[in-house]
Amino acid sequence: MSAYRDFLEPNGQYAATFGDKGSLAIRPTKKLAIVTCMDARVNVFAQLGIREGEAHIIRNAGGIAKDALRSIIISQRLLGTREIAVFHHTGCGMRTFSSPELRSLIKESDPANSALSAVDDIDFLEFTDLEQSVRDDVQFLRENSLVLPETKVSGWVYEVETGTIRQIV
Amino acid sequence: MSAYRDFLEPNGQYAATFGDKGSLAIRPTKKLAIVTCMDARVNVFAQLGIREGEAHIIRNAGGIAKDALRSIIISQRLLGTREIAVFHHTGCGMRTFSSPELRSLIKESDPANSALSAVDDIDFLEFTDLEQSVRDDVQFLRENSLVLPETKVSGWVYEVETGTIRQIV
Repeated sequence: MSAYRDFLEPNGQYAATFGDKGSLAIRPTKKLAIVTCMDARVNVFAQLGIREGEAHIIRNAGGIAKDALRSIIISQRLLGTREIAVFHHTGCGMRTFSSPELRSLIKESDPANSALSAVDDIDFLEFTDLEQSVRDDVQFLRENSLVLPETKVSGWVYEVETGTIRQIV
Repeated sequence: MSAYRDFLEPNGQYAATFGDKGSLAIRPTKKLAIVTCMDARVNVFAQLGIREGEAHIIRNAGGIAKDALRSIIISQRLLGTREIAVFHHTGCGMRTFSSPELRSLIKESDPANSALSAVDDIDFLEFTDLEQSVRDDVQFLRENSLVLPETKVSGWVYEVETGTIRQIV
């Protein structure tokens, strides 16, 4: 039984009340890109009051700006966004391991499989200090030559314990 | 005036009705990771009936599996997911350009800025055929040695014109 069997009924309900959303344009109306974590407790639309059509939502493990750079360039250069809000969150898994530890865990899970050495080429981009990780990502975006210089960049923490956000930068 | 000023009032409303969500665990209860596009019209929770705590949501320009690999490894090895659903969508910006075109556009926007040549190192991972791009990403995940071999991988298209999903793989 796959989890995706659960998609069909709620999707039918969504489509049945789709209204005029079929005419939404591809360019985000708020000219905003949000970078945040893949964490299952993060629900950007509900937590920030975002509606369909308003903002690009880029999500990866940690909400790491460096890992979002390809997407941000496309968002800005082809689709007109001019503001980036970076959200990291309390209770993040990115603070629970180091890249060397994770590489060892993977290679030791199947020592006979030499293909697993491919993991040595991956930087998992973990961090230790939550607020500093937000400041670092804002700085990365402000200094990166491929991010438009006029971009407004802000940095935030989402608290999974309370549902609240607070601005760091 | 920044778009993020709009975050505060809806976030206050979300937090005020947070209920018992503060006790949700870090591990996704459906053991599911969803990979989809950053597109502003894609709202995973509403369109697939996902609730907080159930699934990792990885989003990038196109919903490209290769670009999600770091996150998927962390999702599987550290946080227990065993199923991946890849969604691409109609009307995607990834079908409107090529990497060489985008690199030229960026470098020609400021020819005196030699730092922009950094864009030559970026593969923007665009695609031309929507359904084939879904099949390619499913194949990438099924064949990649760093994705757990027991992973269930499915591939889908979301239609921005109607709000409906259909399974490709």
